[in-house]
Amino acid sequence: MIDKDIMRDFIKRSLQEDIGTGDITTLSTVPEGTKISGRFIAKESGIICGIEVARAVFDYADKSIEFNCSLKDGEHVNKGDIIGTISGDAASVLTGERLALNLMQRMSGIATNTNEAVQKVSGYKAKIVDTRKTTPGLRVFEKYAVKAGGGANHRFNLADGVLIKDNHIKAAGGITKAVEAARRNAPHTLKIEVEVETIQQLNEALKAGADIIMLDNMDNNTMTEAVKIAAGRAIIEASGNMGEKDLEEVAKTGVDIISIGALTHSVKALDISLKFD
Amino acid sequence: MIDKDIMRDFIKRSLQEDIGTGDITTLSTVPEGTKISGRFIAKESGIICGIEVARAVFDYADKSIEFNCSLKDGEHVNKGDIIGTISGDAASVLTGERLALNLMQRMSGIATNTNEAVQKVSGYKAKIVDTRKTTPGLRVFEKYAVKAGGGANHRFNLADGVLIKDNHIKAAGGITKAVEAARRNAPHTLKIEVEVETIQQLNEALKAGADIIMLDNMDNNTMTEAVKIAAGRAIIEASGNMGEKDLEEVAKTGVDIISIGALTHSVKALDISLKFD
Amino acid sequence: MIDKDIMRDFIKRSLQEDIGTGDITTLSTVPEGTKISGRFIAKESGIICGIEVARAVFDYADKSIEFNCSLKDGEHVNKGDIIGTISGDAASVLTGERLALNLMQRMSGIATNTNEAVQKVSGYKAKIVDTRKTTPGLRVFEKYAVKAGGGANHRFNLADGVLIKDNHIKAAGGITKAVEAARRNAPHTLKIEVEVETIQQLNEALKAGADIIMLDNMDNNTMTEAVKIAAGRAIIEASGNMGEKDLEEVAKTGVDIISIGALTHSVKALDISLKFD
Amino acid sequence: MIDKDIMRDFIKRSLQEDIGTGDITTLSTVPEGTKISGRFIAKESGIICGIEVARAVFDYADKSIEFNCSLKDGEHVNKGDIIGTISGDAASVLTGERLALNLMQRMSGIATNTNEAVQKVSGYKAKIVDTRKTTPGLRVFEKYAVKAGGGANHRFNLADGVLIKDNHIKAAGGITKAVEAARRNAPHTLKIEVEVETIQQLNEALKAGADIIMLDNMDNNTMTEAVKIAAGRAIIEASGNMGEKDLEEVAKTGVDIISIGALTHSVKALDISLKFD
Amino acid sequence: MIDKDIMRDFIKRSLQEDIGTGDITTLSTVPEGTKISGRFIAKESGIICGIEVARAVFDYADKSIEFNCSLKDGEHVNKGDIIGTISGDAASVLTGERLALNLMQRMSGIATNTNEAVQKVSGYKAKIVDTRKTTPGLRVFEKYAVKAGGGANHRFNLADGVLIKDNHIKAAGGITKAVEAARRNAPHTLKIEVEVETIQQLNEALKAGADIIMLDNMDNNTMTEAVKIAAGRAIIEASGNMGEKDLEEVAKTGVDIISIGALTHSVKALDISLKFD
Amino acid sequence: MIDKDIMRDFIKRSLQEDIGTGDITTLSTVPEGTKISGRFIAKESGIICGIEVARAVFDYADKSIEFNCSLKDGEHVNKGDIIGTISGDAASVLTGERLALNLMQRMSGIATNTNEAVQKVSGYKAKIVDTRKTTPGLRVFEKYAVKAGGGANHRFNLADGVLIKDNHIKAAGGITKAVEAARRNAPHTLKIEVEVETIQQLNEALKAGADIIMLDNMDNNTMTEAVKIAAGRAIIEASGNMGEKDLEEVAKTGVDIISIGALTHSVKALDISLKFD
Repeated sequence: MIDKDIMRDFIKRSLQEDIGTGDITTLSTVPEGTKISGRFIAKESGIICGIEVARAVFDYADKSIEFNCSLKDGEHVNKGDIIGTISGDAASVLTGERLALNLMQRMSGIATNTNEAVQKVSGYKAKIVDTRKTTPGLRVFEKYAVKAGGGANHRFNLADGVLIKDNHIKAAGGITKAVEAARRNAPHTLKIEVEVETIQQLNEALKAGADIIMLDNMDNNTMTEAVKIAAGRAIIEASGNMGEKDLEEVAKTGVDIISIGALTHSVKALDISLKFD
Repeated sequence: MIDKDIMRDFIKRSLQEDIGTGDITTLSTVPEGTKISGRFIAKESGIICGIEVARAVFDYADKSIEFNCSLKDGEHVNKGDIIGTISGDAASVLTGERLALNLMQRMSGIATNTNEAVQKVSGYKAKIVDTRKTTPGLRVFEKYAVKAGGGANHRFNLADGVLIKDNHIKAAGGITKAVEAARRNAPHTLKIEVEVETIQQLNEALKAGADIIMLDNMDNNTMTEAVKIAAGRAIIEASGNMGEKDLEEVAKTGVDIISIGALTHSVKALDISLKFD
Repeated sequence: MIDKDIMRDFIKRSLQEDIGTGDITTLSTVPEGTKISGRFIAKESGIICGIEVARAVFDYADKSIEFNCSLKDGEHVNKGDIIGTISGDAASVLTGERLALNLMQRMSGIATNTNEAVQKVSGYKAKIVDTRKTTPGLRVFEKYAVKAGGGANHRFNLADGVLIKDNHIKAAGGITKAVEAARRNAPHTLKIEVEVETIQQLNEALKAGADIIMLDNMDNNTMTEAVKIAAGRAIIEASGNMGEKDLEEVAKTGVDIISIGALTHSVKALDISLKFD
Repeated sequence: MIDKDIMRDFIKRSLQEDIGTGDITTLSTVPEGTKISGRFIAKESGIICGIEVARAVFDYADKSIEFNCSLKDGEHVNKGDIIGTISGDAASVLTGERLALNLMQRMSGIATNTNEAVQKVSGYKAKIVDTRKTTPGLRVFEKYAVKAGGGANHRFNLADGVLIKDNHIKAAGGITKAVEAARRNAPHTLKIEVEVETIQQLNEALKAGADIIMLDNMDNNTMTEAVKIAAGRAIIEASGNMGEKDLEEVAKTGVDIISIGALTHSVKALDISLKFD
Repeated sequence: MIDKDIMRDFIKRSLQEDIGTGDITTLSTVPEGTKISGRFIAKESGIICGIEVARAVFDYADKSIEFNCSLKDGEHVNKGDIIGTISGDAASVLTGERLALNLMQRMSGIATNTNEAVQKVSGYKAKIVDTRKTTPGLRVFEKYAVKAGGGANHRFNLADGVLIKDNHIKAAGGITKAVEAARRNAPHTLKIEVEVETIQQLNEALKAGADIIMLDNMDNNTMTEAVKIAAGRAIIEASGNMGEKDLEEVAKTGVDIISIGALTHSVKALDISLKFD
Repeated sequence: MIDKDIMRDFIKRSLQEDIGTGDITTLSTVPEGTKISGRFIAKESGIICGIEVARAVFDYADKSIEFNCSLKDGEHVNKGDIIGTISGDAASVLTGERLALNLMQRMSGIATNTNEAVQKVSGYKAKIVDTRKTTPGLRVFEKYAVKAGGGANHRFNLADGVLIKDNHIKAAGGITKAVEAARRNAPHTLKIEVEVETIQQLNEALKAGADIIMLDNMDNNTMTEAVKIAAGRAIIEASGNMGEKDLEEVAKTGVDIISIGALTHSVKALDISLKFD
C-alpha cells in the first residue's frame, strides 16, 4: 500500500492545483444539497489500478461520499466493465472527479503496460522492474502501478540503493575502487550494483564483489555470455531502451532482471469514464 | 514563463522525492571536489521544451553549475543535436540530472505532440488547446509545453473558467437556467462556456447567451452544421477523443477551437540524454 | 462556500499565530475538564458574516464543541441580537474565541459596508463589486463577505481575469495591440478588460473588441457619455475612489459595474461579543 | 524589525494568493525585457509604515529591482510627498505592486491612527498599546505598525503573557486562586495580569500580587479611584472600547497603559499610489 | 498539555523521517489484516512521561489502534511495571512503534532526571527550571517533560522573556541603559531579567529595577551574599553548569530559581520496551 | 555531507522554534548596526562535529556573517582549543547562537561517544554502527555524527533496509517464509536482514538465504558459535544493549557489525562555548 501521509499530501496539493480558489461553475450553478450518483466504466480493456487512490481522493474531498468498488488494484477489466459506483453531494463528487480519473487512467495505463511486458517474459526467470524515470511527484504511485501490473520495483530514490555508473567509476578511479568505496561508506544493508558496458567491465565488477550487475545497452548475445560468466555470483540486470526490445529474446539470455524506463516515462492512459446517472 | 515560486516549490519537492536522505552512491564513491561536464543530446527529432525548467533545477541544486543552452523552448531539434552543455561539481550535477531529464523529456514530448496537431490544422482557423487532463502536480509545466508546441491553453483550474457540463445543467434545471445562474454568480470577467451534445442544446445555449459552446463528441457533419448555426455568436470548441480524430477534417468544420486531452494524458517522452565527457 | 482546504490551512496558521507555544493563562488557571458556554451577541446592527468560518475555527480547535446558530451568512442582525450559542471544553473554546471573533467582526464589517453600497444603487442596473485591494491572506474570506453583503466579485487573482492597464498598454504599443496580444496569448475562456481614462481610449478599446471597459476616475458626465458610446458592445465598469463617491449618482450614469476598493481595504469591524454564561 | 523568516513566508503566501498560476495580463501583453520605473506617492498626510516590508516584497519578486526610499517607517508624510522610487523589469514590478501597496496602505493607516492616539495623551504618562484584535495572519505587521506610530505592544500571543480574565477567574475559583495558579504554573519570566471590573476585584487582585491590572470598561472616575488605590503596586491598564473614548480624559485618570483594539481591527488605509513614469 | 497542532505537525514529520517511502519489511512480510497486541514495559525505574504523545502517535498512524494506559505523565514506575497495552492492525502498530518509544524514552529520561534534581532541593524554596538548551525541534516536548518531573519552565523562546546578557549590556552601554531600553521597548507584560557575574553588577541591576537577576557561575558564598543584598527586590536565579553542582548546597544559598541546561542537553533515555504478545 | 535541503528546512524550523515572533531582548537593547565577534571554544576534549551545520545556521540567519573554522567535522579537539571564530551583525549572530551551539554540542557528543566505541574495537574487524533510536527530527544529523566519530550507518529509515524481526516472522509464518516474502516483494537492491535469538533461528535464517543476521541479545559465547556457524555466508551483526557491554569482548566473537542504540539515544553533549570578544 502507498503510505497514507504521502498520499494525503499529494491529494491535497493536486486538488488545490485543480480547484484554485473554488469550482466557480459548480458553485454558481448547482444548488447546495444536490445529490449525484454515477459509475466508473472502463472504455478499454486492461489492468485496473488506482482504485484505492481514487477512494482516498473522494474521502479527502468529502467523507460522506460513498465509493463502492468490488475490484482490486491489479485486476483485469474488459471494455465496458463497471469499475465501481459513486454517490454523494454533487459539488463534492465533481470536485474530486478530474483528479480521481487522471490518477486512475494513468496508473491503469502503467499497470496495463507493465502487465504486457510481464506476459511476454512469462516462463522465463526474468523479472520486469521499473526505473527512476518516473513523473516528478508521482513516483510512489507509478511504482505501485508497476507492482499492480505484475512487475517489481527498482530502488525508490538515491538513498535506498547503490548504483555505480560510469561517472562514479571514473571519479573513483575504476570499478574496483568504486565498489570498495561503496562497501566502506554505504550502509551494509544495501546491495551494491554496478553498471557495465563490456564483458571486461563485467569481469572486474564480479571480481570486486558487486552484488548486482547492470548490463547497459548490450546486445542479446553479449548478455547471454555475461550471464554465463556471472554464473550466479551476482544478480544480472538488463537495461537500456528495453521498451523497444523484443522482451522474450532478452529474457532468453538468462538475465534475472529487465528494467524498463518506458513503463513510466511514456504512458498511454487507460480510458476510464465516470458516467453520472 | 512559469511562475518562479511554483517552479521552485515543485523542484524542491521533486528533488526530495528523488534523493531521499542523500545520493548514497555519489557520496560514497565520488571524491569531494570532483568536477564533471557533459552535453544534452537529442536522441530523436522534435520540439524541445523544458530548458528553462532544467536550468532552474540545476540552479536550485547548486548555483555554481554552468548550464549553457542557445536553444529556446519551442524550437525544433534534430536527432543528434546538442541541446546544451553543463559543467560543475560532480555531486551537484548528478543530483539534478534525473529530474532535469525527466522534465525535459516529458515537456518536449508534449510540445512535439502538440506541434504535430498544430501542423495538421495549419491553414484553418482552429486553435489546438489542452484540457484539465494533465498529470497531477505538473499542470503549469504541461500547459507551458503545449504553448511551446504552438498550441493554446484552456482554463488552468476550476476557478478561472466557467464550463457548464451536463451535470450542472441537470442540477440547475436546464441550459438557460444554468447560464443565468453563472452570469449572476460568477465574476463578470469570465466567459461562460456550455457543453452541448445536440443541435437542440446548441440552440438553447446560443439563445441563453453562452460565450463559448463546446461540441461534445459530435461527428464532423453535425459540427459543420453547428458552426453555421452559431454564425459567430459564440466561440465554437470541438471536444471528445480528439486525439484519435483526423484533425484536418475537424478543422474543416470551421470550429474555432479543438481541445485534446491526449496532448497531456498520454505522453511519449522525447528521448534526450546527458552524455558526460 | 469557501474552499474547505483553504479555510483549514488558514485556520491552522492563524491559530498558531494567536496561540504560540500554548495558552499559558488557560493552561495555568483552568482545571482540565472545565466546561463553558456562551452566546455571540451583536453589539451593533448590520449584516452578519463569518458564521461558517467561526464554526470551522471551533471545529478545528475541538470537534466536540457545540456551536449552534440559526442565522446564515448575509442575514441582517440588530443590536443585541443573539447570533449563536457555544458550549464545550473551556480550554478549547477559549483557544478559538479570539480568531473566531476577529474573523466574524471583520467579515461582518465588510458585508455591512457592501450592503450599504448595494442599497444605494438599488433600482439601477449597476452591480457593486470588489477589487484586489484585499488584506493579504484573507482574499477569499473578504470576497465571500462582499457576496454575503449582496455584492459581486471581480477577479480573484491575476490568473483569472485579463485587465489591461496603462502600463500594459504602453508596453504593448497601444490599446489595439494590447488587446490583440491578450486575445492571442490568454486562454479563450477569459474576457478581456481594458482600463481607459478618456473617451478616445474608450473608442479604441471598443474597436479593438474589449469585452469589458473600466472607466478610471472619470466624472459622472463623461461616464454617461461613455455608456452611450458603448451602447452595449462592452460591459462598462466605473472605478477609482468609488468609496468616496455618491454611488447613486454613479449608478445613474448607466454603468454596469461599480468596483470599490474601500469595501475591503478600509474596514470598520462590526462589534460582536462572546458573552459567557 | 520584523523577523525575516516570518516576513518571507508571509510574502510568499500572499504573492501566491494574488498571482495564482500567473499574471496572465502581463504575460500576454508585456514583451519580455520591458523596463519600468515609478514613484510611490502619498495621497494623504500621515505616518508612513511598511517601507521595509515593501522592499522585501520587491526583493522577493526579483532581486534586481531597485527600490529607493529615504524615508523610514514611522516618519510623517504630507499629501503629495514622494515616498520612494522603483525601477526594474516591468513584469516583476507589476507582480509585487498590489501586495506592496496593500501592505503599505494598511500599515501606514495603523501607524497614522496610533499616532493620533499617542498625540492625544502626550503630556500624560499613559502609553498607547495594541491588543490581540489584529487581522489573522498579519499580527507581527500590525504590531510593528503600532510601534512605528509611537505606540507600544501588548503580548504577541497567548504564550507570552498571562492575562487572567473572568472565565479564568471563575474556573480557578476566584482571583486569588487564579493568580496563585498562574504563579505556580507559568514561567517566572512573565508578569501576571488580571482583568477586573470593580474596585472590589481590584483590591483582591492587588492583594494576590498581580503585576498588572486591567480595568475593563470602567468609567473615568472609577479608574481615577483605582489608580489611587493601586498606588504603584501594579501597572494599571485601561481597556474596553477605548477607540471611542476621549483619550485625554482617560489619560488624566493616571493609568499607565491604554489598550485600544480599534488600532488594528478597524483600519482606514492611508492612500498611497504607485505612479509609473 | 502540549498544543495539539504542534504535536500533530511534529508526529507527521517524524513519521515521514522514520518511514521514508514505506516500511518495506512490514509491507513485504506481514499479510494485510494481521492483528498484533503488546505491552509497554519499564526496564528501569523512573518518572514516566510521553504517554499522551505516544497515544497521539498511534492515533495519527491509525485511529483504530487501541492504546490503554492507566498511568499519567509524571507518575513513578518501577522496573518491570507495565506502562500500558496496545492492540490493532500490525502494520499500523509497527509503523508507530519506534517513534513512540523514542519519544517516551527521551521524555521519561528528562522527567526522571528533573525529578532527581527536584528531590535534592526539596525543603528549600528553590525551583528547578530548564533552559533553551533543548534539542532543536523538541522544545515543547522537553519542557513538558521537565514539568512532568516536577520542575518548572524558563522562557520558551526569545519572544516570551527578556534576558539581558553581557552582550546586550555591552551593546546598550551598561546594565542601567539596557534595562531602561528593555522597559521602553519590550511589551509591559514581560519581566526583565539581567544576567550578572559580580556583586557590583547585581547592585546596578537591582537599582535599575530588574525583575529577575541571574547569577552566572557564582560560587555559593557569593550567591548567599547576593540573595541577602537583593532582599526580595528581585527574583534570584542561579545558573551555570548547575548539572554538575551539589544542588542542595546551591539551594541553601537561598536562591529562588536554579536553571539547569543539562536537564535537556544531556539526556539518558529511560529504557522502555514494547513487548508483543 | 548532509543534504542541503533537509538541512535548510531543519534550520528554518529550529530557528522559528527558538525565536518565536522575535528576539525581544536583542531588539530592545542592541542598537541596529552593532557588530560583534567571538570564538567557539571547546570546554572538553573530544571529537568535534557540527561545524558545517553551524556554518549553515549562521549563513541562514545572515549571509554577511563571517564564520571561520580550520577544523573539520571528525577531528579531535582538546579542552581549551579554539574551534573557530565568528564576526558580524550582533543581532544576527545572537539569533543563531543557541541553535548552532545546541547542534554542535549534541553532534560532537555523539561523535565523541562513537569514537570511544570505535577505539575499543580497533584491531578487530567489527564495525560500530548506529540504529533507528535517534532523536525524532535529527536522524540525518545524528547519523552524520556517528560517521564523523568513525562509525558506520545502519539503514536511515524503514524504506532503505529490510530487517525482519520477531513480529514479521510470526506474521509471515516462520523465518523461511518471511525471507521468501521479502525476496519476492522488496526491491532487489536491498539486502535482507533477519533478527534471531537462538542458534536454531540462525540456522534457519542462513538456510533461507538471509544476507545479514542480527544476533539479538546473545551472550558472547553464543555469538562466537554463531559466527563460526555462519562461516561468512552472511554478515553477522551483534545487537541488544551494546551500550552497556564490554565492546572489545563482543568484537572478539568475530561479529562483523556491532549496532549500538545508545550512540544516539543517550547523548552527553560536548561542552562548547561561544565567547564574545
